[in-house]
Amino acid sequence: MSTDPKQILILGGGFGGVYTARYLEKLLRPEEAPITLINRENYWVYQPMLPEVISGSIGLTNVVSPIRRLCPRTNLIMREVEDIDLKNQIVTISPGFRPRHLQLKYDHLVIALGSITDFHGMPGMIENAMPFRTLADAMVLRNHLIHVLEEADVEENPELRRQLLTFVVGGGGFSGVEVMAELNDFVRSVKRNYLRLRNQPHRCVIVQAADRILPEMSEALAIFAQRILRQRGVEIILNDRLKAATSERAILQSGTEIPCKTLISTVPSALPPIVQKLDCPRERGKLGVNTGLELKDYEGRVWALGDCAAIKTAAGTIVPPTAQHAIREASTAAINIAAAVRGGKRAEFGFEGLGTLGSLGHGAAVAQIFGVKVSGLLAWLLWRCIYLMKMPGLHRKVRIATDWLLYLLFAPELAQTKVAFESGIRNQHFEPGDIIFEQGDLGNSVYVIEEGECEALREQDGEWKLLATLSRGEYFGEMALLSNQTRNATVRVRTATDVLIIPKADFNKLRHSVPAFGEVFSELAEQRAMAGSLGARH
Amino acid sequence: MSTDPKQILILGGGFGGVYTARYLEKLLRPEEAPITLINRENYWVYQPMLPEVISGSIGLTNVVSPIRRLCPRTNLIMREVEDIDLKNQIVTISPGFRPRHLQLKYDHLVIALGSITDFHGMPGMIENAMPFRTLADAMVLRNHLIHVLEEADVEENPELRRQLLTFVVGGGGFSGVEVMAELNDFVRSVKRNYLRLRNQPHRCVIVQAADRILPEMSEALAIFAQRILRQRGVEIILNDRLKAATSERAILQSGTEIPCKTLISTVPSALPPIVQKLDCPRERGKLGVNTGLELKDYEGRVWALGDCAAIKTAAGTIVPPTAQHAIREASTAAINIAAAVRGGKRAEFGFEGLGTLGSLGHGAAVAQIFGVKVSGLLAWLLWRCIYLMKMPGLHRKVRIATDWLLYLLFAPELAQTKVAFESGIRNQHFEPGDIIFEQGDLGNSVYVIEEGECEALREQDGEWKLLATLSRGEYFGEMALLSNQTRNATVRVRTATDVLIIPKADFNKLRHSVPAFGEVFSELAEQRAMAGSLGARH
Repeated sequence: MSTDPKQILILGGGFGGVYTARYLEKLLRPEEAPITLINRENYWVYQPMLPEVISGSIGLTNVVSPIRRLCPRTNLIMREVEDIDLKNQIVTISPGFRPRHLQLKYDHLVIALGSITDFHGMPGMIENAMPFRTLADAMVLRNHLIHVLEEADVEENPELRRQLLTFVVGGGGFSGVEVMAELNDFVRSVKRNYLRLRNQPHRCVIVQAADRILPEMSEALAIFAQRILRQRGVEIILNDRLKAATSERAILQSGTEIPCKTLISTVPSALPPIVQKLDCPRERGKLGVNTGLELKDYEGRVWALGDCAAIKTAAGTIVPPTAQHAIREASTAAINIAAAVRGGKRAEFGFEGLGTLGSLGHGAAVAQIFGVKVSGLLAWLLWRCIYLMKMPGLHRKVRIATDWLLYLLFAPELAQTKVAFESGIRNQHFEPGDIIFEQGDLGNSVYVIEEGECEALREQDGEWKLLATLSRGEYFGEMALLSNQTRNATVRVRTATDVLIIPKADFNKLRHSVPAFGEVFSELAEQRAMAGSLGARH
Repeated sequence: MSTDPKQILILGGGFGGVYTARYLEKLLRPEEAPITLINRENYWVYQPMLPEVISGSIGLTNVVSPIRRLCPRTNLIMREVEDIDLKNQIVTISPGFRPRHLQLKYDHLVIALGSITDFHGMPGMIENAMPFRTLADAMVLRNHLIHVLEEADVEENPELRRQLLTFVVGGGGFSGVEVMAELNDFVRSVKRNYLRLRNQPHRCVIVQAADRILPEMSEALAIFAQRILRQRGVEIILNDRLKAATSERAILQSGTEIPCKTLISTVPSALPPIVQKLDCPRERGKLGVNTGLELKDYEGRVWALGDCAAIKTAAGTIVPPTAQHAIREASTAAINIAAAVRGGKRAEFGFEGLGTLGSLGHGAAVAQIFGVKVSGLLAWLLWRCIYLMKMPGLHRKVRIATDWLLYLLFAPELAQTKVAFESGIRNQHFEPGDIIFEQGDLGNSVYVIEEGECEALREQDGEWKLLATLSRGEYFGEMALLSNQTRNATVRVRTATDVLIIPKADFNKLRHSVPAFGEVFSELAEQRAMAGSLGARH
C-alpha cells in the first residue's frame, strides 16, 4: 500500500459528525487516513442540556465541549461549508480573514449538517422569532430575557409591561417544552430582584399544533407534563400554530394574537440550503441512504447521518432526531468508512432507541425507558444522571455537577453577557394596524417600503389628519433624522407590510459618503417640508 | 418632615457608583430617599479579575455581579446616560424598546461614569485596537484569540501564520501587563490542541512609553516583573508607543511596524463625552471636587468620584484609578449625601492607599503592601487571597474559588462563545503600501474613499499595469459584487487612507430598495467595464 492516504472529510460538528470522528480515531491509525472535520464553531453542543443555559443552571461554556479535545487527532476547520461537489469530490469552504475560498478534495465524505429552522411562508417570523438550536441562540435568548425584564422594570405603561412580560414558544415537542420550562423557572426566580416586578404576573404560552404536547411520548406522560406545566403557570394552546409575527406580537392560525416581545420557535425544520441543492435521491425530503448509511448513488464514497438523512430503524420506522440515534449512526458510518479505507467487516444501522426523556424544569421530568414510564422528581433525577453520564469527558462532568450543586445553593445568575445590541440594515414585518413610529418619537431610522401600504397621520389639537398614503418603493422617516428632531407624524400600517430599516448611524455614514444616496432623502424631506406634510415621493 | 423624599441619582455602575449605593442603603432608611442607579449593564464588573476571563480561569459571569443583588433597594435602570443638565437638575437617559427619552429629576446626583479609551489623533486605532475595560471587551478579546488560533491552524502561508500568532498590547501599566500575562498563558496552553500550531512559536509584545513597565510600582518590582514576563516569552518594547494601526499591523512612534491581527490598547484614557461637556470647573482635565467630593459650583447637590474626578489624597497627590480608592471615595460621598438629606456629620476624603498588586500570570505576581515588597509565587497567592476576600458576596467567592480549583485540575476552556462575526457598514484605515483587496479575491464589500489615495493595478502575464488612481469621494469594488465574480484588480494604498466599507449583504439590500443608490454603482461598473479597466468615477 504505497498509495497516498485516503482523505476523510466530515461536515458538521453535532453528535453525528463528532462521534464519527471519535470512532474513526479509534478504528484507523493516523497514517491510514487523515480526518478533517468542518464546523462553523470550534465546539460541540451537548444539545440535551442546552435549555439549561437559559436559567444559568449550567454555565455557558460547560454545555459545550471543544471539538479539538473530543477528537484530538482530527483536523478541525472552523469555517462554513459553502458547496459540496459530489461528482468531483470537492468541498468548498467559506473564506477566513482573507477573502479566498478553500477547496478540499476528499476520498470519503460524511454529511452530518443537521437541519435548520425554516420560516418559509410565515411572514415576520425570520425577523422576530428566535430559533433555539445553537449555543449562540441560547445566549441571545438569555440576554434578551434579561433585557425585557430590565425594560419591564422601567416601563410605566401597564399594557407595555404586560407585553414585555409575555413569552411565547412555538412547538410543544421536547425542545419547545424544555425551553419553556427553563424560561419559566428563570423568569420566576429572578423577578424578585426587580423592585417593580416582584408582584407582577408574567405570562408563558406554548403553542402546539397537535392536540397534546410531547408527541414523542405516550399520552399518559404528555398529560402528566401538561398538568405540571400548567401548575407552574404555563398556558398551553393546542391545535393551533404560529402564522406570522411582528416585533410586537405573535399571530396564530386561529387569529389569536399574543402581544409579546419574546417569541421562540422550535419548529419547523428543513434541510440546510447546501444539502437541499445536492443532486442525489431523497426520501421524505431528506437525503436517501442505505442501511450502511451510504448516500444513494454515492455508495462507498459518501455517508449521510443525523437530522439531514432519512434513516430507518430495524423495524422500518423513521429515526427521531435524538442524540442516542445520532451516536449509533456515527458508529455505523465509522465502521463502514474504516472498511472502505482498509477493508474489513461492514455494519448496518438497526438501533431501536432506549427510550425518551424530557425535562419539565426544576425537579420534574417525564421518562419512558425500556417501556417503563416514570414521571416527577424521580424522572428528573434519572434525566440528570443519564445525561451527566453520557457527557463525554471527566472535565465536563465535574463542571456540570458543580454548576448544578451551586445552582441549588445560590440564586441564579442575572448578569447580561450581551456584546452589543446594535443591529445594522435589516428587514422588518408589520401587520395591519401596527404603528411603525409615533409622532414625538426620536428619529432612529429611515424606512423603505418593500411591500405593503402605510399611512402617515398627524395629530393636531386632538384631531388626526391623514397626511399621505405610502406604498411600495416609498421612503419615510428621513425628516426626523435630517432635522435631528422628533417624528412629526405617526406612520400606521394599512396592509401587511415589509420594510427595510436603515438605522441612523448607517444612514448618516452613507449619505456623507455616497452623495446620490443622501440626495434622494434630502430632496424628499425638502418636498415634504414644503408641502407641510409627509407627502409621497415623486 | 412632610416634604417629598429627596431623589438620589447615581450615574455609573463601577466601584464608585455601586459602593455609593451600597453605603447609602445602609445610611438611609428607604422612606428617607429613594436611590436610582443608571448603568449600561445590569452587572458590576470586578475589574481586578477581568483579565482572568481571557484565559478562562474565571468563568465569564463569575467576574461580574448583578447590581440588583449588590444593591437590593436601589432602582437600577439599564440604559445609557445621554445628558446631564446640572442647572435644572435633570438627567436624560437613552430610549429602550420605545424610541423615547427618559428624563429623571434629582435632588442629589453622583457622577461616577469612569473614563473611556481615547484614540484621538491615532489613525486606525479606533477601528483596529481592542479596548479592555468591560466584560464585553474581555469576551470579544477571548473570542478573537480563539478565532486567530483557528485561522492560524488552517493558514498555509508562514508569513500570515506568524501575523496571526502575534499579539500586541499597548500600555505597560497594571492593566496592560495583566492582560498580556493572561493572554500569553492562554495561547501557550491551548496551542497544543491545534495540530499544526503545537510547534509554532507565538509572539507577545508589550509596548510601553516609559523606560520601564508598571510605573505604579517601585523600580525593583518592575524590573522583576520584566524579567518574569521575558522568561515567559513576552517581548517588552520600552520608550515607544502606538501611533497608528491597520487591520494588518501595529505602527509605533519609532517607525517600527509589527504585523499582527491582535492589538489591544489599555491607554490612553479620557473623560466620557457627556462628562466632558459639563459646565463646571476642571482640574487636570477631570471634574474638580472638594475634599467632600462635591462637584465645585454644585456643592451639596452633585458629587463626583472615581476615574472622572480629580481627587487628591490627604498628602495632596492625585488618586490613582484603583478599586480601593473608589470604594473609600464612595464611602465619603455616601456619608455626605446622607448628611445633605437628613443632616449629620460630614466626611472628608483622605485615603492614602494600602498598596499595589499586579498579577504576572499563573503563579507569579508583584505586590507592594504597607511598604513591603513581595514578588513571585507568594505575591501571586497574596493577590488571589486579597482579591477573593474583597469580592462581595459568598456566592461569587465560592464560584471564583471553584473556578480556580477546576482550572488547576483541567485544561482551559477552548470554546468560542461568539454570537456573530458579521459587521455592518464601517470605517477602516489603511497605511501606504497596504493592499485593500487582491485580484482573485472574493468580492465581499464595496469601498468609498473618505480620505487618501489608492491605485488599482492588474496583473497580466506576470506584469502589473496601473489601471487608475482613486482618490477622495471615489468608489471601488463594485464590479466583483455586481458581476458576482472575483476581484479583477488589486487595490493598493498610496497615501494614508480612510474608507467606508459597505459589506455585500448591505450593498445588495440598499441597491434593491434605494434604486438611486444602486444606479451610482451600476453606472460606474458599466463605465469601467467599457473602459476595460477600473477607471475613475466621472
